[in-house]
Amino acid sequence: MKRIILTVCLTIATVCVMAQNTIKLPEPDKNVSMTLYQALQQRKSVREYSSKEFDDMKLSQLLWAAVGINRPDGHLTAPTAINAQDITVYVCRKDGAYLYEAKENALKKVSDKDLRKEVAANQTFAADAPVSLVIVTDNAKFRGGSTNGPTISGAIDAGYVSQNIDLACEALGLCTVPRATMDKDALKKELKLSDTQTPILNHPIGYKK
Amino acid sequence: MKRIILTVCLTIATVCVMAQNTIKLPEPDKNVSMTLYQALQQRKSVREYSSKEFDDMKLSQLLWAAVGINRPDGHLTAPTAINAQDITVYVCRKDGAYLYEAKENALKKVSDKDLRKEVAANQTFAADAPVSLVIVTDNAKFRGGSTNGPTISGAIDAGYVSQNIDLACEALGLCTVPRATMDKDALKKELKLSDTQTPILNHPIGYKK
Repeated sequence: MKRIILTVCLTIATVCVMAQNTIKLPEPDKNVSMTLYQALQQRKSVREYSSKEFDDMKLSQLLWAAVGINRPDGHLTAPTAINAQDITVYVCRKDGAYLYEAKENALKKVSDKDLRKEVAANQTFAADAPVSLVIVTDNAKFRGGSTNGPTISGAIDAGYVSQNIDLACEALGLCTVPRATMDKDALKKELKLSDTQTPILNHPIGYKK
Repeated sequence: MKRIILTVCLTIATVCVMAQNTIKLPEPDKNVSMTLYQALQQRKSVREYSSKEFDDMKLSQLLWAAVGINRPDGHLTAPTAINAQDITVYVCRKDGAYLYEAKENALKKVSDKDLRKEVAANQTFAADAPVSLVIVTDNAKFRGGSTNGPTISGAIDAGYVSQNIDLACEALGLCTVPRATMDKDALKKELKLSDTQTPILNHPIGYKK
């Protein structure tokens, strides 16, 4: 009897902790009026951001554009080599770091730390943005993928996702710059990445200053 | 006097040959109504194409979206690492192969051959498309770039351009699939690439079958 009670308590506790550590995002509103060709005309890299935060709807719209599911069979807005789906995107902000779970349209907390400085590294401007997205490729998804940095396929796949973010920022009134500079070792540790996962690009994102 | 006449004749001949080998594209119409978010919802890889050819306006719109100039200072629709602008795009069709010259919005002929089979390699479906675009990165634009295949930066940059093509195809009523398979050696030779240039991705493109 004691064991049953203990199991129930542990289950409840686990569910509570999981709930605390998972933020369900609002369903992304895809009625965004900017045309693709307007976004392409406006596409540019911006390195100055207002400190104004943006809400979870905008974050949901942004993450769906980046690497969201756009078909019932689970295919994504960004293609991946041999449909490896090697890319994951992490959200770093003041209240911690989160893995974007496309299927659940949710953020799963992976760290309580504000990692925007680790993303910025020596380019301090990047830490001013309220959100930094980190694009991670998993080499294990490719034949011959090792622990020695990203594969060429993984790099191409990161480019697809990064361009989706560039264009979505224009359409959502945000601004960004894609960057390869970051403290990769610190991020690998704090984001709890596996040995075969590599942070390859990042995007500080905010409103225009 | 004889020398002057000869020089003039040679100049005229050169201009004529150059004119024959350069196709000026129409100014791309950027009033394309599809929104970015509609294009992202529709984005998918398609491997069957109608043999119907598409006109130079559509080609101009497609190439501008891929890697066109979107600002007076020469910046492009696709970002590149350290603004290296390492990417060039080649157009392969029945009447030959062309380099897209973004500044002149023109196609410069580099081969009289139909190279779509070399682009398709062992995946013959790809040769059915009326146009194949080949995305080439130049390793020499990056520090440490060698003749041994693409750099990680070049691969990321190719991904940006490739995603622009994916999305532009949706907006223009065309379809495509990004591919890494192709006869790279044959293409390097026929497209007259330098030792440091590598064909990294290609896109067969056509109307839906």
